[in-house]
Amino acid sequence: MLARLAAVLESRKPENGGDPDKSYVARLFHKGDDAILKKIGEEATETVMAAKDARAAGLGPEAVGKVVYEVADLWFHSMVLLARFGLKPADVVNELARREGLSGLEEKAQRKADGG
Amino acid sequence: MLARLAAVLESRKPENGGDPDKSYVARLFHKGDDAILKKIGEEATETVMAAKDARAAGLGPEAVGKVVYEVADLWFHSMVLLARFGLKPADVVNELARREGLSGLEEKAQRKADGG
Amino acid sequence: MLARLAAVLESRKPENGGDPDKSYVARLFHKGDDAILKKIGEEATETVMAAKDARAAGLGPEAVGKVVYEVADLWFHSMVLLARFGLKPADVVNELARREGLSGLEEKAQRKADGG
Amino acid sequence: MLARLAAVLESRKPENGGDPDKSYVARLFHKGDDAILKKIGEEATETVMAAKDARAAGLGPEAVGKVVYEVADLWFHSMVLLARFGLKPADVVNELARREGLSGLEEKAQRKADGG
Repeated sequence: MLARLAAVLESRKPENGGDPDKSYVARLFHKGDDAILKKIGEEATETVMAAKDARAAGLGPEAVGKVVYEVADLWFHSMVLLARFGLKPADVVNELARREGLSGLEEKAQRKADGG
Repeated sequence: MLARLAAVLESRKPENGGDPDKSYVARLFHKGDDAILKKIGEEATETVMAAKDARAAGLGPEAVGKVVYEVADLWFHSMVLLARFGLKPADVVNELARREGLSGLEEKAQRKADGG
Repeated sequence: MLARLAAVLESRKPENGGDPDKSYVARLFHKGDDAILKKIGEEATETVMAAKDARAAGLGPEAVGKVVYEVADLWFHSMVLLARFGLKPADVVNELARREGLSGLEEKAQRKADGG
Repeated sequence: MLARLAAVLESRKPENGGDPDKSYVARLFHKGDDAILKKIGEEATETVMAAKDARAAGLGPEAVGKVVYEVADLWFHSMVLLARFGLKPADVVNELARREGLSGLEEKAQRKADGG
């Protein structure tokens, strides 16, 4: 599914005929890096707000659904960034796989926690 | 792969025997929502910085690899949030699938661009 | 100056006659907390991007001016948040003053660095 | 007050004898741009969380005090960034003053809202 979405994103690049007048993603590619990065900052903030709302709402289904929606927005715009830089979701998934296996995962996180 | 990682995260919850002294993820669960949300804000910022660095470095492989690394961190901590709220990566992927199919995808984005 | 700006913001509140059709700030107040908080997230991201650009541009005056511009946006929207919650810039300045005096300042920061 | 704090920050620069082992700010300067920018992203996220908590707590004094505290952290680290780039809080205040005067303020915001 992520690969399929990545293919759609790829088709929205200007050099692949993406039309900024018709496609939101083509418009982001047309505007450039900063427009995409700004969206990542925005969607991260919206994810934080949705999570706060979901907790305040006792994790009711509608409020929790909003968290899913915002994380999807965050991942979506991350994937636009990946496409922009010639990367694929598989690169990210491979990086997560590389870390996984308990020891790897925890070792990485430990380094991170130690300021690495 | 995302499902496998989600299962590892699940096993790190305090109620499943996750030990905050031994596991970074168990420690995040133990600290609670805010610790997880703070990481999402941090990793979004680090993604933005890595992307800026990658562009300034002419998209050289090392600098682009740093973008993959930071997006992986962002997705990883998003998945910790999902687990925290009883959600799964499949929920996010399904939301992305729901939007996909050109029309759906673009319609959603259009609504968003219009301030929806 | 900050107090004067705070007074202008105050006058933009709906209960003080601020008109969402005419004033950007009145519009933010009308939309509510989330619209304001989203702007704070956005402006923080734009500050990060402007700083990265300024460094890449060798701290040239135009690029550095962009940093000033973005920090001003960040402070401006912080002040809208303060007004929204019945607070004043003086509250923030007093908090900074409280911390200041070397020892106080450093002690606070040390606590923060230690995860407090 | 902001000018006095700026002077303290200035004295923490390595070239002015700031000692990374003794001073949190000297440590930030020593680590460099990214450490400072990361803090700005963090403090923006913490401001958003504190504001959400304050609203959920009915704007009780303790929760609202937390908002002041986090905005102070955000401004503090913005000032570290300004110092890093040879700028002063007065530059930001001047930029805010430049925008002020109803027309200027609103015109700027209007441009911004229109995507400028």
